[in-house]
Amino acid sequence: MTAGDTVPAQTAARPGAPASGAPVPAEQAAREQELTDRVAASFAGAPDARTRELMQSLTRHLHAFLREVRLTEDEWRKAVEFLTAVGDITDEHRQEFILLSDVLGASMQTVAINNEAYGDATEATVFGPFFVEGSPRVDIGGDIAAGATGRPCWVEGTVTDADGAPVPGARIEVWEADGEGLYDVQYDDDRTAARAHLFTDDKGGYAFWAVTPTPYPIPYDGPVGALLTASGRSPLRAAHLHFMVTAEGLRTLVTHIFVRGDDLLDKDAVFGVRPSLVKDFEACSPGTETPDGRDPGMSGWSRVRFDIVLAPADGTAPAAEG
Amino acid sequence: MTAGDTVPAQTAARPGAPASGAPVPAEQAAREQELTDRVAASFAGAPDARTRELMQSLTRHLHAFLREVRLTEDEWRKAVEFLTAVGDITDEHRQEFILLSDVLGASMQTVAINNEAYGDATEATVFGPFFVEGSPRVDIGGDIAAGATGRPCWVEGTVTDADGAPVPGARIEVWEADGEGLYDVQYDDDRTAARAHLFTDDKGGYAFWAVTPTPYPIPYDGPVGALLTASGRSPLRAAHLHFMVTAEGLRTLVTHIFVRGDDLLDKDAVFGVRPSLVKDFEACSPGTETPDGRDPGMSGWSRVRFDIVLAPADGTAPAAEG
Repeated sequence: MTAGDTVPAQTAARPGAPASGAPVPAEQAAREQELTDRVAASFAGAPDARTRELMQSLTRHLHAFLREVRLTEDEWRKAVEFLTAVGDITDEHRQEFILLSDVLGASMQTVAINNEAYGDATEATVFGPFFVEGSPRVDIGGDIAAGATGRPCWVEGTVTDADGAPVPGARIEVWEADGEGLYDVQYDDDRTAARAHLFTDDKGGYAFWAVTPTPYPIPYDGPVGALLTASGRSPLRAAHLHFMVTAEGLRTLVTHIFVRGDDLLDKDAVFGVRPSLVKDFEACSPGTETPDGRDPGMSGWSRVRFDIVLAPADGTAPAAEG
Repeated sequence: MTAGDTVPAQTAARPGAPASGAPVPAEQAAREQELTDRVAASFAGAPDARTRELMQSLTRHLHAFLREVRLTEDEWRKAVEFLTAVGDITDEHRQEFILLSDVLGASMQTVAINNEAYGDATEATVFGPFFVEGSPRVDIGGDIAAGATGRPCWVEGTVTDADGAPVPGARIEVWEADGEGLYDVQYDDDRTAARAHLFTDDKGGYAFWAVTPTPYPIPYDGPVGALLTASGRSPLRAAHLHFMVTAEGLRTLVTHIFVRGDDLLDKDAVFGVRPSLVKDFEACSPGTETPDGRDPGMSGWSRVRFDIVLAPADGTAPAAEG
């Protein structure tokens, strides 16, 4: 072997000396590239074209990562142990792989890719694990709290399409954590609270009582929590209220609204915050008259407006115009 | 939103239409990039510099993959289900995450990165899951088969350093599957067979009887097997004999030798084959005299030579010279 030619590595850490910036010798780089090419080629015979595309792209990006960081064999073993631990804690009640996807921003990136920017259409964000089918229906102005603790919050707005036309009869599902930072399904008593659905009126309007959102942590007693700790990150999610809005001919919207002023907005554990989804929750002191005359008791209450714009179901039209 | 500017995507499949080559609009691409940057930045506070480097690189490559293939939300759900199934089948006897790493070539790439090309030093390959500590010792010329089925095979060679000097007293661990394609530990009866260790003589020479390697499948009754099937790939490994060679001051070598003419050489399920590790196994008909006068009975036998060259323990020297 001639020891002469070398090629630069993007992050050219040496085995056992990851911080080093030494280049990878040409013969070594050639061996590594040949292997990547051979693995990618092994998927060339996949009967389904999309499977082939996914596996070949995954192979190339995975190998690029390994080569860039010069992964050590000890780090590889730790990665296997980590994934094994993620598998071990996962069961019908706990999905640690989704948490892992969430804290790596992979869930939010997938949402972004599949809910393409469309004019002023309301942005989507992560679905989360706490939606439940078959929520109770409330009328416009009704209370979704159903006993959930927390400061009452009046939520109102409209649903329109991207041309500004009202969308009557749109179905709005809402769900949220209570004042303790827990969803109803996290209690042992089969309660249903702080979740409901309602429909917009003939002008596309809606309104309901809920509770003011509060921050809460994602489950952090497992390997994903340990990863966050090792990364100097918090498991807290910025306070939010979940929406899912469906209407015929329009793109289903899964999103949240966030609370302006929440100091977790720029460090949400799952990267769900979009600036357009941060809303003013107006604090109203006890005794302030409520929109529907309801007496919220001794506590203060809050109010927020969220006007929702739905993209067309075939929401990629603007790109085609471009 | 202006629908004008667009940027090309590497594989610009649209949501729900992955085969399409339409470009990603500029506003959409900007949102996706901002998210990737935000996730990478979230690891900036990791106390350990290497953790920071690994997680930031992983984030960038993972997001590049998602964006390149325009992963659909349904594909994301299937990926979570796949990883969950990999976790479910993994226990103290079955490590499906290692199998997954193997069939993606990640194990072999990690081996390549950590066993850098060094002159004529023998190349490394994957360790595999079947090594067992505490193998029996045999003398030079001894038989490691210990009852394992298969065609007898005489294996001989030398161990030298990169300057060609013999390495006396090098420890050679060898292990292999039997004629049925099974390792001893895959039987229920606690047998020890087709595994042993020996030491080189004062000229660096070694020789032993083993059985001629035969192909066998990696475990394919789990999700990794299903992935191979969906990818049009075989679970078979090319026939091979495992070696691990250790000597003071020299880089430990974990490798295999393969059988020239094996039609699986170019489709080994775990990408372990290197051309330099493919050896001539000479077939000898019954009655051919053996090197040590042993009578292998009615069967024929084979013989192979494997001269081993060990790199220095500090094996990155040639790169430093370059």
